[in-house]
Order: sequence, then structure tokens, then C-alpha cells
Amino acid sequence: MNRTSLTGLQMIGNNFSGEGDHTFRAFAPLQQQWLPQEFREATTGEIDSALNLAAQAFTVYKKTTPQQRAAFLQAIAEEIISLGDELINVASAESGLPLPRLQGERDRTTGQLRLFAATITEGSWVNARITTPTPDLRQMQIPIGVTGIFGASNFPLAFSVAGGDTTAALAAGCTVVFKAHPAHPHTSHLTATAIRKAVLRTNMPDGVFSLVHGTSHETGQYLAAHPLVSAIAFTGSFKGGKALYDTATRRAVPIPVFAEMGSVNPVFFLPGILREKGTALATQFLQSVTLGTGQFCTNPGLFITAAGNDTDAFINALRQGVGTLPNGYMLTPGILAAYNNGIATLREQGVEVLGEAPPADQQATPSLLQVTAAQVLENPALCHEVFGPSSLHIHAGSIEEIYTVARRLEGQLTATIHGTEEELQQHAALIDILREKAGRIIINGFPTGVAVSHAMVHGGPWPATTPAAGTSVGTAAIYRFCRPVCYQDFPAYLLPPELQDENPMKIWRQVNGDISKNSL
Amino acid sequence: MNRTSLTGLQMIGNNFSGEGDHTFRAFAPLQQQWLPQEFREATTGEIDSALNLAAQAFTVYKKTTPQQRAAFLQAIAEEIISLGDELINVASAESGLPLPRLQGERDRTTGQLRLFAATITEGSWVNARITTPTPDLRQMQIPIGVTGIFGASNFPLAFSVAGGDTTAALAAGCTVVFKAHPAHPHTSHLTATAIRKAVLRTNMPDGVFSLVHGTSHETGQYLAAHPLVSAIAFTGSFKGGKALYDTATRRAVPIPVFAEMGSVNPVFFLPGILREKGTALATQFLQSVTLGTGQFCTNPGLFITAAGNDTDAFINALRQGVGTLPNGYMLTPGILAAYNNGIATLREQGVEVLGEAPPADQQATPSLLQVTAAQVLENPALCHEVFGPSSLHIHAGSIEEIYTVARRLEGQLTATIHGTEEELQQHAALIDILREKAGRIIINGFPTGVAVSHAMVHGGPWPATTPAAGTSVGTAAIYRFCRPVCYQDFPAYLLPPELQDENPMKIWRQVNGDISKNSL
Repeated sequence: MNRTSLTGLQMIGNNFSGEGDHTFRAFAPLQQQWLPQEFREATTGEIDSALNLAAQAFTVYKKTTPQQRAAFLQAIAEEIISLGDELINVASAESGLPLPRLQGERDRTTGQLRLFAATITEGSWVNARITTPTPDLRQMQIPIGVTGIFGASNFPLAFSVAGGDTTAALAAGCTVVFKAHPAHPHTSHLTATAIRKAVLRTNMPDGVFSLVHGTSHETGQYLAAHPLVSAIAFTGSFKGGKALYDTATRRAVPIPVFAEMGSVNPVFFLPGILREKGTALATQFLQSVTLGTGQFCTNPGLFITAAGNDTDAFINALRQGVGTLPNGYMLTPGILAAYNNGIATLREQGVEVLGEAPPADQQATPSLLQVTAAQVLENPALCHEVFGPSSLHIHAGSIEEIYTVARRLEGQLTATIHGTEEELQQHAALIDILREKAGRIIINGFPTGVAVSHAMVHGGPWPATTPAAGTSVGTAAIYRFCRPVCYQDFPAYLLPPELQDENPMKIWRQVNGDISKNSL
Repeated sequence: MNRTSLTGLQMIGNNFSGEGDHTFRAFAPLQQQWLPQEFREATTGEIDSALNLAAQAFTVYKKTTPQQRAAFLQAIAEEIISLGDELINVASAESGLPLPRLQGERDRTTGQLRLFAATITEGSWVNARITTPTPDLRQMQIPIGVTGIFGASNFPLAFSVAGGDTTAALAAGCTVVFKAHPAHPHTSHLTATAIRKAVLRTNMPDGVFSLVHGTSHETGQYLAAHPLVSAIAFTGSFKGGKALYDTATRRAVPIPVFAEMGSVNPVFFLPGILREKGTALATQFLQSVTLGTGQFCTNPGLFITAAGNDTDAFINALRQGVGTLPNGYMLTPGILAAYNNGIATLREQGVEVLGEAPPADQQATPSLLQVTAAQVLENPALCHEVFGPSSLHIHAGSIEEIYTVARRLEGQLTATIHGTEEELQQHAALIDILREKAGRIIINGFPTGVAVSHAMVHGGPWPATTPAAGTSVGTAAIYRFCRPVCYQDFPAYLLPPELQDENPMKIWRQVNGDISKNSL
């Protein structure tokens, strides 16, 4: 290992550390080879150091003004852009994702940093609530402390080091110890150096952000069990999220885990819409299934139709279309193996292959599978997520059976319905069932593509996420890292600006039940 | 048992049921005798019936308009008042609480029903967030389903059958299966009949509310483990709340538990304020400690001072004052026994008795105890809650030691500081430490008295409540029973009124980042 390089080390606050002896390397999917750079796994001592520094930094960082934190977030965005092509090239090498996709993902990353900066600068997000005069009660959201955040494999930029969770936590006023995903350690390192430059440029406290590397579950578990951590954010597999949840809820002092654990994102196609434009929908659906080689949390892994001639034509179009789709490299050999195992397991359980692309070595083959509604109702495990470019068709005998399937679904990030206006009006009850199952309901669209906006919900009932009341995309994500506090009978000189009579920040507040920007 | 009486039975939706053979009776603290009325414990079959009915009712109830739900809540308030003196007399017999206190508690109960009715009628609470045009995303809060709610021993009206948790859940659109506290089953029955009349009067679905009785932990555990339950709300002991939390987080599908598990509500007295008005503060503090025989979640069970002459005078005033305080009957023999054991255990651990009232048979004796800061730092368990009219004085050697004690405190519902203006400005850092520990910070007041308002926070970091982000008092309590859902690209005719372009409900909404009541 090159001892003179900082790449490969932990970043503990603004300093680099390489105490451990265990090293690992990232795999380049397109080249099918291990990359040369070695990364050291963090020792528990290094994680302790990062957390201690984060706890110290929190005492300073929580008192920064929204403007200061916004400048910090803006600076992170600028420093990410300053990394230039190197970041994109390294991310592409480590993930196998194409350059244009990663350029777009970088835009998404800097865009969400700027959106959160604007949100906290505007300031109304703190949900100030004031009731007077006796007692004088003034409530607002405050940050909860040190957060432990995990990078996702499938978004090396937007759900990784400077991604949505980090941005929301920093915007709220929390400090962050970030566990890099071992599939893209170099990308993570580069992004962390951008954050480091932003910390130094904007005079943020040393320790507001740290990066640790690790390949073992123990590293993550150590973080989730640590007394200095106040919340965990995670995007990944159900198994990984559940393990963190179990640890965090069994601590002496339990902490929340905001785990986005994936979903099969069912898409319901009603017969009338298939009659109108089944062929076009087949093409669009296959694009959604195979976008990014199917490596999205919102990949439509399940679609449901009712028997009929128009459905048969749609299915035939899908069958023909899937055979012409390109194979794709997946993020890691482990993810490819899990995909192939997932498909094989379904086939062993009697699931029919509706169609698949011609296989290619070391690549994921787009596949459409098919079961009857009866099969799924008997064995709900058939609907579990197979992460990758496949989708399982549930062939219902009737519209009534579609309802039965819908009622039996597990919690989902999204649920989608395609129907004509007449069908949608007729099947409002189906939409109503799906609303109980998912965080986002889509009409005549596709679940892939998760806009970062004030109104997005990227979350949903278990096992999609925990807890269902959170979102990991959009500005409402900030509330995961906050709690309300009430100041009773505080003299003016002790109140935070958000709660002062004069409303110096000019934010929207609820004062004795009325919403306004008025002073008291 | 009188088979012709409905009192003593479960109320499963609008019908009464007495399948079980196990019966119990309530204890009358003032008379020190068991009351004659027998109550049947619910069978698991009865709980199943209540939950199945609640799940069916939810499919209807969640679609009621806010106006319909508000009318229901108003009707409950009216029917509670229609119960007249009988409710107050029965509650007093079962709890030993005086009539004026219970009349006030009834006002609080009907007041919070009306406050929630007004809140949902106004409608902005749903936090509508809209971003357009592509994609068209519209987010709002929706109810989470069937809730299991537990009555508290110490508020037979305001934190019981039609109390804050039930009101918040019903306001949100959730249905309720309520587990009555066995200390006041008759009060619970009467209140349930008031809700039943309101259900019938306002045409709410049968099963929107059910009442079950039980004395065993198994009844509560059965509810928390039941697949039809989406959330639990509880007010009571740490042990009880923790047991429900453990069950709920270890289910196949975990659910949130909103447990308010009590607190010692530390009160810090700085030297300057004691110099100015130590004697008056001593009187007020003793009133707060012994209010309701100390049976409040916000009872100040801990107070902290720094050594000095003014502190000595304050302590002497307390010592003299406590000797003149009246004894009081506690809610149940079990609670009295726990109080006496708690005091005895502290004394065995070397805690000094600062002063106590003369004892009286079967009553709780107001007691002030004292330890040094060093003792508490060595043995933090000394600070655990002893529910009743006692408070533990932590005698710190210096202001610095006060800070050390503050930093080591567990999570609390409240924390209070008494100080002169000069002291408060000088010790902003102490307030800052306490803000991390509690949901409500009080300046120059006392924690007892929890106003039901839009701005109240009755919650705080573990072990005060779980999760810290909730409140069980005030209108923000409604958010515990909701989650956000996002409607993407919905045609106008499928959108709920809150999210329609025209804003027919005239609620405050966030549209593309701007807050207004405008239509799109």
C-alpha cells in the first residue's frame, strides 16, 4: 500500500487516519477486474474517534445559523463540481455506470444540496408554533445529534457520501459519520475530500463530517450500537436494514433507524388502457424495468394484469420486446450473483419465464417472469424483491382477483396504476387499497425517476422503509433528523430567532392557531 | 355478577360482550376498599373481534370528511358532559382524586376534543405540499390504520378512554381499540358509552372505537403483537412502555409505539434567584411536588442547587415546609407500595432524608431526599423516577458540578431553570445542555401543568418517551398517527380536496415552495 497517499484512509474530521491492517479493493464491473487502489477498513478506535469528534462538533454546529449551514451545503456542491471529470471517471470505474448517468447523478446531488440550502435559508421548515400568553409556549424543530449514515451501492453520488441523507442531516444541524459503501470507496473518498474543503472554507467545526470505510457487517453494527449515535440512515437491502433496525431498537437507549430497504413497486395495468395503447406501454414498461440495469429502489419488479385479449397482446409485446433488450453489467459481482440466484430460485418454485434477453457472460439478463394470482396468493414470498432488470407478471383471472392481490401486497415505496379515465373512476377503490400499501401512488406513469422536490415521498410501510412516516428523498427528509422542543415562558433574550416576537427571520409561523409571517 | 348490567363488559364497536370468566374490581383509595362492581377481562377472541371490526371501520372512517370527524369529536365532548355528576363521582371513587380536580380534568378532556375538532376543520394540519408541473407531486398526511391505545392510571379522563391519544388518533382518521386501565374500569366504561352514543348520533362506522378491559400484561402484549394494529399509544411506567416497545419492534412487521414513560423533570435553582426569593420558591416548589399527590408525569422528582448560604436558606425553608404538608391517598395500593418501596430503596442506598410530613396510614407521605452530586454521578440510578409526592435534592458543590450533573441526565419530558436575568444570560450553556435532554424547557416556572395547545411538547428523549420526535399533548400529537403519501400525476377527479388545484378547503399549502391559500 502506498503510505504516502491519503486515498484509502479514513477521514476523521479534517484529518486522515490509517490505523487498520485490513484492506480491500473495489471491483470494476466493465473491466471485470479488481481496481489497484487499496482501502483500509476502519478500526473501532477510528470509528470512536470520528464519533467523539462528531459529538464535540455537534455542540458548535447545532448553533450555526441557517445561513451558515446553507453556505456550507453550497460549498459542498461547488467542491463536488471542482472535482471535475475525475469524480465521474472514478465513479464509473467503480460502479460500471455510464458517464452520462453519473453526470446526471452529480447534478442531482448538487441540486439537492442547493435545494436544502434554499429551504433552510427560507427557514419556515422549523414548524414554529407559538401559543400565548399563559403559559407562553414556543415550539420548533431542533437537530437530534450525531448521525450514522450508510452509502447505497446503486447511487455512488446521490445516495452516498454527499447524498440525500447526508444533506438532510447537515441541513438540520446534525453531524455525520458516514460509512462508505465498499463498492465505491474511491468515489466516496473523493466526495469526502470535497466536503472537507467545504468545511475548511466555511469554517465549520472539525468533525461535522467524517468518512469511514468497511466491508464487514461489524462496522455497520458497531456504528448502530454506539452510544454517541442518535440516528441511523441506510439505503440498501432488507437484510442489511433489518439488522441495523434490530441493533438500534435493542440498545439500552434505542435510536431511530431510517432504512430504505427496497420494494417491488407493483404496476397495475387495467384492460382498457392496454386496449388503447398496450404496445406503447410495453415499450415504456421495459425501459423502466431495465433502466440502470434495473438497479433502482423504485424498479417495477411486479406487474399485474387481468385475463383478456388486450392483456394477451400486451404480454406478447413484452415477450417480444424483452428478447431484444441489451444485457448490462451490475454494480458488483455480489449483486449480479444475487440477481441470478433470485431468478433461479423463482424458476425452481415453478415461476414461468415469459421472456428474456440472450445471456451474456458476467452481465445481467433482462427477464420477465410470470405466475398466476393463485400462485402468489399461496406463496407471497414469490413477490420478494429480485434486485435487477427483471419483473414478475402476476396474471390475474379477473379484475376481482387483481383486488385480492392488491390487498395482500406488502408495504412498498410506490404503487402504480395504468387505466383509462373511465377505469380510474371505476377503480377508485383499487387506488384506495394501494394508498395503504405505498408512500407514493403513480397514475399512468412509471415508478423509476424519483424527483427531488418538496412534495416527494420516498418511503412507505414496512418492509419498504422504517419508519413509514419518513421520506429519504425531498426536503421533508429533514424531519427524520429533528425533534420538536418547546420553550416555556422564555425571556426574549433566550429565544432562538425563529421564535422571537419580532420574527426577525420572516418565516411562516403558527401563532395562536393562525399561520402568518407576522410579529407577535 | 349482575348479568343484566352492561357495565363490566367489553364494548366491541357498538355492542357489549362478556365472553370471559376472569373478573376484577376496582379499589376505592379514599374508602380503602374494593368497589362492588365486577368487570370481565377481555378474552383474546374479544380483542380479535374488536380489531377486526376496527379494521373494517377504518376503510370507511378514513374517508370521512374532516367536518364529519370534527362533528364526531364534538359529539363525544357533549356526551361526556351529558354523563353529568355520575362520571365525576365514579372517577373520584375509583381514583381517590377530589371532585374539583376531576371536574377540571373533564374540562381538559372536552377542551382537547374541541381543539382537535377545530384543528381538523381548519384543515391545514395535513401539511399539503405540491410541486408542479413535471412530475406533478402532491403530498399530504394520511391516517395509519387501527391503533391500540392504553389508558393511564393518573388521568382517568384526560389520558384515558376519550383522552389525548384517542382524540388525536380519531382526529387523524384512525380507528381505536382502547385498553382501559384496571384502576378505573367503571369510569372507562362510562366514557366509552359516551363515545358509543356519539358514534350512533354522527353515523360513524361501527367499530371506530372499542373498549376492552384487562388486568394482565398479556392483554396489552396481545394488542401490541396483533397484525391488525398499526400503532400503539401508552402512558405509564418505563417497565410497561418498554415491554410494549420490545414486542412492537420485534414483530414480523414492526409498528411504532408512542410510549410516554415518565420522567424526573429536573429543576435547577441558581443561587441568585434563591437570594431574591428563595422562600417563595420553596413554597411553590412544594406545591408542584405534591400536586395531585405527586401523581403527574411532570412531577419535579429532582432538584439541583449549588452550595452557598442562599441555598442553605432555601433548603431550610423546604425542610420546614415539607413537614407541614398533608398526606394523600394514591391511585392504587400498588402505586402506594411502589412509592414507599422507592423511598425505602433510596434510603437503603445512603440517600439522606431532608424532611417529610408525618406519616398517615395507607397514605403517601410527602418526602424530600438529598444526595450529593458525587453520589449521583457515581450511581445514576438514584435519579430514577419514584412516582409520587417526593423529590430528590442533588446538592452540588459548585455551579461547575451543576453542569456535570446536567450533562449526565437521562432524557426527560421537561427541564426547568430558575435564575435571575443575569444568571440566565450567564448560564445559557446550561439551558443549551438541558435542551438536548428534554422536550420542554421551562424558565422560572414549574413543570406540572401541561397546557393543551398547538405549541405544547409532551415528549422527550429516551427514557421519557419513544420516539423523541412525538408529543402526546397538544395538536401536534396528531402526527403520531399519520404518514405522508405522495400522489403523482393524479387526474383532478382522483385527488383529495386538500390537494386539488382550486384548494376548495382553503387550507394553507406549500405550492412549489411558497406557502399560501391560493389555488394553483
